Order: sequence, then C-alpha cells, then structure tokens
Amino acid sequence: MEIVIAPRPGLLDPQGKAIQHALAALGYDSVEEVRSGKAIFLDVRAPSEEAAQDQARDMCRKLLANPVTEDFEIRACGPEEAP
Amino acid sequence: MEIVIAPRPGLLDPQGKAIQHALAALGYDSVEEVRSGKAIFLDVRAPSEEAAQDQARDMCRKLLANPVTEDFEIRACGPEEAP
Repeated sequence: MEIVIAPRPGLLDPQGKAIQHALAALGYDSVEEVRSGKAIFLDVRAPSEEAAQDQARDMCRKLLANPVTEDFEIRACGPEEAP
Repeated sequence: MEIVIAPRPGLLDPQGKAIQHALAALGYDSVEEVRSGKAIFLDVRAPSEEAAQDQARDMCRKLLANPVTEDFEIRACGPEEAP
C-alpha cells in the first residue's frame, strides 16, 4: 500500500518553497504553490486489506508521520501497482 | 496536482530499509518491504488539466525526479484535494 504524507496546510514548508524557487528559476513561473511531502510504499502481510490499512494507520501515528505537523493518507495498491 | 516519486525497483533504498527496521523494532514484523519516496503537491496555473500535467512531466524530468534512480507518477487532484 501507499502512504502519502503532506505538511499540514498553513504550516511553513521551506523545502516546498525551495522547490518553487528552483522551478521559477527554470522558467516555470506558473507554479503558484509547492508543498513537499513523503511517499512510503509498504508491503504488509495481513489477513485482509482492511487489516493492512489499520496496521498502516497505526504505523503512521507511531512512527511514520509527525502528528503535529503532517497529515497522512493511506491508499491501497496491489503488489505491483506502486509507481 | 500530486507527483509521487519512488525509487526504481531493484535499486537499493537504505531509507526504506531503515524505516522497515524501525517498524520491526516497534513490533510490526509483518512488513515485508518498505520503499521510501517523495510526494510533491503543485498548484499550477494552466489553461487545461492536460497542459498542467505536461508541464509537471517536464518539471519532473528537469528537476524533481532523478531519471537514473527514480520513477514518477503525476496525478490530477483538485485545488483542495491534496491530503
């Protein structure tokens, strides 16, 4: 499955700003906002997709995401569907 | 839109391995593989969704992704749909 972690809206995201400036320097000045996050792809052994998602949610709360500054979203994807 | 960047299959991903070991230390030993990538959320001013995606693909090739070690995937999402 795929976990996408993004900085919370409203919080400063200096890495996103740096990417935006680098894109502008390359001529992409139509980019109005950039936010930079993480994508984590997990293969989890679990009896069901639901159980796997529950485990992943737990892992996000305990380790993968910072609950103060980040939001996360868990998405199912088949064993070979990660990009 | 959302850009998800993942290390190419078969390449070493030490950050993913570190996450896997940290998860195992927390008791999540059903996690069989972890790969660690990036998620970048862009707001782009463009005449159409297709034009925006074309621009994003260009940006990935020129700056955002490393074509030797990373694969990327571009996904449309509405202005407020980023997680």
